[in-house]
Amino acid sequence: MRAARWYKAKDIRVEDVEEPKATGHDVKVKVKACGICGSDLHEYLVGPIFIPVDEPHPISGGKAPIIMGHEFAGEVVEIGEKVTKLKPGDRVAIEPIYAPNKDGEYTDHHYNLSPQLGFHGLSGGGGGFSEYTVVGEHMAHKMPEDLSFEQGALVEPAAVGLHAVRQSNFKAGDTAAVFGAGPIGLMVIDALKAAGASKIYASEVSEARIKKAGQMGAVVVDSSKSDPVEEINKMSGGGVDVSFEVTGIEKVLQQSIHATRIGGEIIVVSIWEENAAINFNDIVIKEKNLKGIIAYRHIYPAVMELMREGYFSGDDMITDRIKLDDVVEKGFEVLVKDKRQVKIMVSPE
Amino acid sequence: MRAARWYKAKDIRVEDVEEPKATGHDVKVKVKACGICGSDLHEYLVGPIFIPVDEPHPISGGKAPIIMGHEFAGEVVEIGEKVTKLKPGDRVAIEPIYAPNKDGEYTDHHYNLSPQLGFHGLSGGGGGFSEYTVVGEHMAHKMPEDLSFEQGALVEPAAVGLHAVRQSNFKAGDTAAVFGAGPIGLMVIDALKAAGASKIYASEVSEARIKKAGQMGAVVVDSSKSDPVEEINKMSGGGVDVSFEVTGIEKVLQQSIHATRIGGEIIVVSIWEENAAINFNDIVIKEKNLKGIIAYRHIYPAVMELMREGYFSGDDMITDRIKLDDVVEKGFEVLVKDKRQVKIMVSPE
Repeated sequence: MRAARWYKAKDIRVEDVEEPKATGHDVKVKVKACGICGSDLHEYLVGPIFIPVDEPHPISGGKAPIIMGHEFAGEVVEIGEKVTKLKPGDRVAIEPIYAPNKDGEYTDHHYNLSPQLGFHGLSGGGGGFSEYTVVGEHMAHKMPEDLSFEQGALVEPAAVGLHAVRQSNFKAGDTAAVFGAGPIGLMVIDALKAAGASKIYASEVSEARIKKAGQMGAVVVDSSKSDPVEEINKMSGGGVDVSFEVTGIEKVLQQSIHATRIGGEIIVVSIWEENAAINFNDIVIKEKNLKGIIAYRHIYPAVMELMREGYFSGDDMITDRIKLDDVVEKGFEVLVKDKRQVKIMVSPE
Repeated sequence: MRAARWYKAKDIRVEDVEEPKATGHDVKVKVKACGICGSDLHEYLVGPIFIPVDEPHPISGGKAPIIMGHEFAGEVVEIGEKVTKLKPGDRVAIEPIYAPNKDGEYTDHHYNLSPQLGFHGLSGGGGGFSEYTVVGEHMAHKMPEDLSFEQGALVEPAAVGLHAVRQSNFKAGDTAAVFGAGPIGLMVIDALKAAGASKIYASEVSEARIKKAGQMGAVVVDSSKSDPVEEINKMSGGGVDVSFEVTGIEKVLQQSIHATRIGGEIIVVSIWEENAAINFNDIVIKEKNLKGIIAYRHIYPAVMELMREGYFSGDDMITDRIKLDDVVEKGFEVLVKDKRQVKIMVSPE
């Protein structure tokens, strides 16, 4: 079968690999749609970050070259002998986090916080940029009939956005600001809408993303043209209740702190490439709260129900659709160069 | 009357000033005991920090030279014509925060978070390093009969420690670590005892403070000799539930983050002189919470009740007692040079 494998930074090859088999608690999935994620792009440009190269990942046992792609949905085509909840023909959205326990189930309540945190499609074991892949039964969530496979492939980034809002102190009626309106920032905006935000501000530089965020209902500041701290403080009357930092840039983190009200909260959603400095008096003297979140847990079914109500819609996110064989040229390379892109969806068919 | 006035860094003069009068809602207090605070020392060494020099403070109307001292207790000797709750002879502990509202009362629930935050004894209007001082009736809390004036002077730093613990997610039975066992760090330790800590760790370099913290029941790591992160992680089995950073030093902040468990919390109690850098992945990937606190609010009566039960005891804190005329030589200068000192109590009598 065809699959896109990461060998090293700037070296992803679409090639023929052996088709996997489902045994035990695993199911074999025919991939129908797989999104390219910001983390995939980081691995392509400056990786390895999450990808195991020297030592195999303790759960998957895999190391580079590894098949990429962790935002995907597909159809079950084969099941292992111990599988009880799924059958061939089921349409499933894949939760790519490896369970840290031996049974291969999400029995650990905080499974996203395991020191062995790993993702199917980043940490070995297969991935969604592939015709077929094999995952644990617990990772394959049966999709409602009225959701498309593309929507299924968006459950993963939507789960990040919803988890960020759920882990915050945000309450219905609060105001919020989202710094960075890339795919995850847009998902945070939709999660805030679902959670009853009275007003959502966003700060972004890309014209296309400013437009998307605006269409989704946010009041967007073009931070290449005006100061988002000044603008958001003015519009919100002294800062929002909760800010979400979704860029991993020091200056933007500082902005997100300054655009948050006294006693408010800053949620850091981004992954950092280096240390960042802030003036902690900004946190101390205004008694602000700063919290980190990673990935999601126990949230796929809720995301899919919200999708049925119109949240996290592919129409707001998907800017291009390509074939697996073109994933490097028309996918990774385009995302690097063309900031009008938001989410590119890859199909192996 | 005699009073110690701050003119500039390294220039505090004990001199004769005019005795103040109580009018309206104010009471005149004969100061019985006033502690030297870490903030006082900062003003002495590298001030002005909180002291208004060019513009008068918006609430007190005062600017340098200002009478210092904000941790004090004394006896009411005169009351303004509108005072209803106090009478001459009452023993009072002074809450030095200026109310931000026009009525001069703590009606604003978050009065410690006012942009005009000011302290009697730092922001003009008088202070406790003085024979007499005049404060709003709402700032003078009647003391229980069985508390000494020295205990009354310790209510202020104890309030900081108790507010820090109350604002955290700490719950009875949790573990905690306190980074820096100076006066405020020791107050945090006692607040944690009052709050039902199952285990309290502390990290400190001064031998005398290590001993004090140990006597108060903390398991203390001498961070000049071993790595507090390694030690506390080992002893606590993977980090404490809540860490308190009480030094304002970048490296110590990093330690406090690394000694906190996955999903745990770091409370920043310190004031910062410059930006500090951390790796925000330490916050993000382990979903830790970092929160700042400043001063206290609505807490003096509770602190005094806990003092009656034996918490925040002067016996654990007071290392010397001096006269007002000696406040520079035997107070500020000694605190700079002699790290065996914890709290020096000044008496104007």
